[in-house]
Amino acid sequence: MTRTSRTTARPASEAGRAVARTTTLIKGENGAGTVRKTVLPGGLRVITESVPTVRSVTLGIWAHVGSRDETPALGGATHYLEHLLFKGTERRSALEISAALDAVGGEMNAFTTKEFTCYYARVLDADLPLAVDVLSDMLTSSVIERGEVEAERGVILEEIAMTEDDAGDCVHDLFAHTMFGDTPLGRPVLGTVDTVNALTRDQVARFYKKHYDPTRLVVAAAGNLDHAQVVKRVRAAFEGAGALARTRGEQPVGPRSGSRSLRTGGRVDFVDRATEQAHVVLGLPGVSRHDERRWPLAVLSTALGGGMSSRLFQEIREKRGLAYSTYAYTSGYADCGLFGVYAGCRPGQVSDVLKICRDELDQVARDGLTDDELRRAIGQLSGSTVLGLEDTGALMHRLGKSELCWGEQMSVDGMLAKIHAVTPDDVREVAREVLSRRPSLSVIGQLTDRQADRLHETVA
Amino acid sequence: MTRTSRTTARPASEAGRAVARTTTLIKGENGAGTVRKTVLPGGLRVITESVPTVRSVTLGIWAHVGSRDETPALGGATHYLEHLLFKGTERRSALEISAALDAVGGEMNAFTTKEFTCYYARVLDADLPLAVDVLSDMLTSSVIERGEVEAERGVILEEIAMTEDDAGDCVHDLFAHTMFGDTPLGRPVLGTVDTVNALTRDQVARFYKKHYDPTRLVVAAAGNLDHAQVVKRVRAAFEGAGALARTRGEQPVGPRSGSRSLRTGGRVDFVDRATEQAHVVLGLPGVSRHDERRWPLAVLSTALGGGMSSRLFQEIREKRGLAYSTYAYTSGYADCGLFGVYAGCRPGQVSDVLKICRDELDQVARDGLTDDELRRAIGQLSGSTVLGLEDTGALMHRLGKSELCWGEQMSVDGMLAKIHAVTPDDVREVAREVLSRRPSLSVIGQLTDRQADRLHETVA
Repeated sequence: MTRTSRTTARPASEAGRAVARTTTLIKGENGAGTVRKTVLPGGLRVITESVPTVRSVTLGIWAHVGSRDETPALGGATHYLEHLLFKGTERRSALEISAALDAVGGEMNAFTTKEFTCYYARVLDADLPLAVDVLSDMLTSSVIERGEVEAERGVILEEIAMTEDDAGDCVHDLFAHTMFGDTPLGRPVLGTVDTVNALTRDQVARFYKKHYDPTRLVVAAAGNLDHAQVVKRVRAAFEGAGALARTRGEQPVGPRSGSRSLRTGGRVDFVDRATEQAHVVLGLPGVSRHDERRWPLAVLSTALGGGMSSRLFQEIREKRGLAYSTYAYTSGYADCGLFGVYAGCRPGQVSDVLKICRDELDQVARDGLTDDELRRAIGQLSGSTVLGLEDTGALMHRLGKSELCWGEQMSVDGMLAKIHAVTPDDVREVAREVLSRRPSLSVIGQLTDRQADRLHETVA
Repeated sequence: MTRTSRTTARPASEAGRAVARTTTLIKGENGAGTVRKTVLPGGLRVITESVPTVRSVTLGIWAHVGSRDETPALGGATHYLEHLLFKGTERRSALEISAALDAVGGEMNAFTTKEFTCYYARVLDADLPLAVDVLSDMLTSSVIERGEVEAERGVILEEIAMTEDDAGDCVHDLFAHTMFGDTPLGRPVLGTVDTVNALTRDQVARFYKKHYDPTRLVVAAAGNLDHAQVVKRVRAAFEGAGALARTRGEQPVGPRSGSRSLRTGGRVDFVDRATEQAHVVLGLPGVSRHDERRWPLAVLSTALGGGMSSRLFQEIREKRGLAYSTYAYTSGYADCGLFGVYAGCRPGQVSDVLKICRDELDQVARDGLTDDELRRAIGQLSGSTVLGLEDTGALMHRLGKSELCWGEQMSVDGMLAKIHAVTPDDVREVAREVLSRRPSLSVIGQLTDRQADRLHETVA
């Protein structure tokens, strides 16, 4: 495979090095790890959490770019690029990239969202230097070779086809369209068959050059590690690739912010598809991830549809047997958010299921939660927060996302304090503000004309 | 809800207690936990792994019963019963069961396979007594109330519909049918719409009574726990329900064994379904879980389709862009096994994908692996074995499954020794024995007549 050089390797001598700034963000207490952050010259952030009781490390490199940064013509470019970074660098072929991690039993993968992209590897602690070397190489020195771009186009079209076949997943893409319309947040992360077919190697390469600047990257690692060693190896890898030199002294970009209002309620999007089950999302605008009301809204969402004892699970599944899967969820973006309830059921049950969903939303909007529900939801969120941060992958995810989304880290104790501080009044207030609006509805499935016509009743 | 009593509570006095036998199976070394086993009077086994560095515990209760224990008329009874155990006991309603664990943020769930059923809860260590109490109550004192059976029938029919919609999952059920025909191993775990509709409350209740005897149950727990405390609480819970008394002195049932031969190769099963992607499994008889050749076969499977650097991933996805997901796998039962390769791709690619799959199978059958591939596959299996046993859920799973399947526990070091002992000759031998037979093929998707006709070429 022919490789063309994107950057000139220019290792800095020790003597000429600018100073890195390191701070301790969270002191490890009560079994939690110590969180440290270093900003390297060039604006590259390295954040680690040291957990000496495990044998593994998860390393992630996060890029502050997602599908909402795409113009319509570039639809799917962020995700396409994520694939291409595995396809070869100046030093490694695609096989050499994957073989390096496979040989030590490491898991390597990546994901793209509307607001960021993350590449990660979970390895035994002794293999962390290898993971730093391979991931840094991919992020700084991808060649985006023309032949690889063509082969990978087929893989992405297969991924789109696979996602199309998963209607329970697709309905969330549809709901984003229902709420955000034809805007960056409303379009699918994968792009469409048409936009993916239209993307050129040079468009993707330009996108890479623009968005993978070290000021827009965060290296996050959690597990059995030493912060200074991680910083040293990351710095060596990025400097070796000439990736810090050109931006020496620059500042990391801050979190996204802003505020946007969503389309009015009462919309219904229905996609006819030959599946056994129909999938419905009934929802409304929620709150942004900067909004303090996200804590009572999380408690509310948990009580409404967060577990087997939640209202939706009890009413729809336990008492009536109308669905196998039903839940409520919130998603928070930098400038807005969504609140939705989901259920998957056979077409004949859709009408009953939607009536229950709407009734429960209305009732919570009117009356809030009972004391029992509030207590249980707070207990559930607290317990699952602690249980959810036991593996190094989850810890790494929290570090990277927190840095990109808030520019700061919150300790587990801090999160638990926020959850426990939620009062019945907070929940009643956010319920009234969020849930009393008119909802919108997205449905995928095979409904009769009569069943489809009745969908509008739910959002009346 | 009216509850009828299934057993008479008969707590044993301390004085009259039969002796429990406790042994240490694995001494905690090199960061691994200590594994201990106690057989309670009545034949109930309790196996724990103590991992003092975590804050959680996963508790599972395993029943030695799976769908292969069903007669055709009882198709789906094992799984139906698994659902019903969440629906109420003599002491708790369905809501009380789920609310108990939700209130502390615990995760509770269950799964049914062809050979066993497992109920589990992951909780903070301080909540282990609660988990023991709730799960023991469910296992010993389910009431299987008639009204709940009817409501849950709808849930299970929804689960079948959901699974039908997941063709990438379904194709493995189809492959079991291709290989095992209309036999217990060839029928789906969930049953069919017809068998589930036909099952009565009394049939399921009889199935429960027959198969949930303490000699057929294993309690497994891993995490921050004390073995003696777990044993004490499990004993109290089971004795409190009168579940140990009636079988005092009995012996636990041993692992399943035997040997069976599979249908001859060259079969093709094709199911026409309106999906974007077609899903194919090309496979052959493998080896049982008691067969020592499972170690070289695992190495072989890893090299062929276990990671991004594997042959199938490289040939099908990286070089040709023909699929998003492709892999090889083995499944071992007590008396036989399967070896298969899977790919999901659009219908137009099926022919090319199957040609590559067959060529790779033939080539490995003929030539085995290169030294490089063997070394990498051994490294990959070793690393992923260690990485895969870091969370308490995986540890609990290994404890319970090992006891039911082999009647013994193998240390991580013991597993690594088995993997590292695999020689090129071992791999060549198992490759020749397993892969040189004529394969069979299962396909789900929307193929043209011409595409469907060509499927037979693959297994010629």
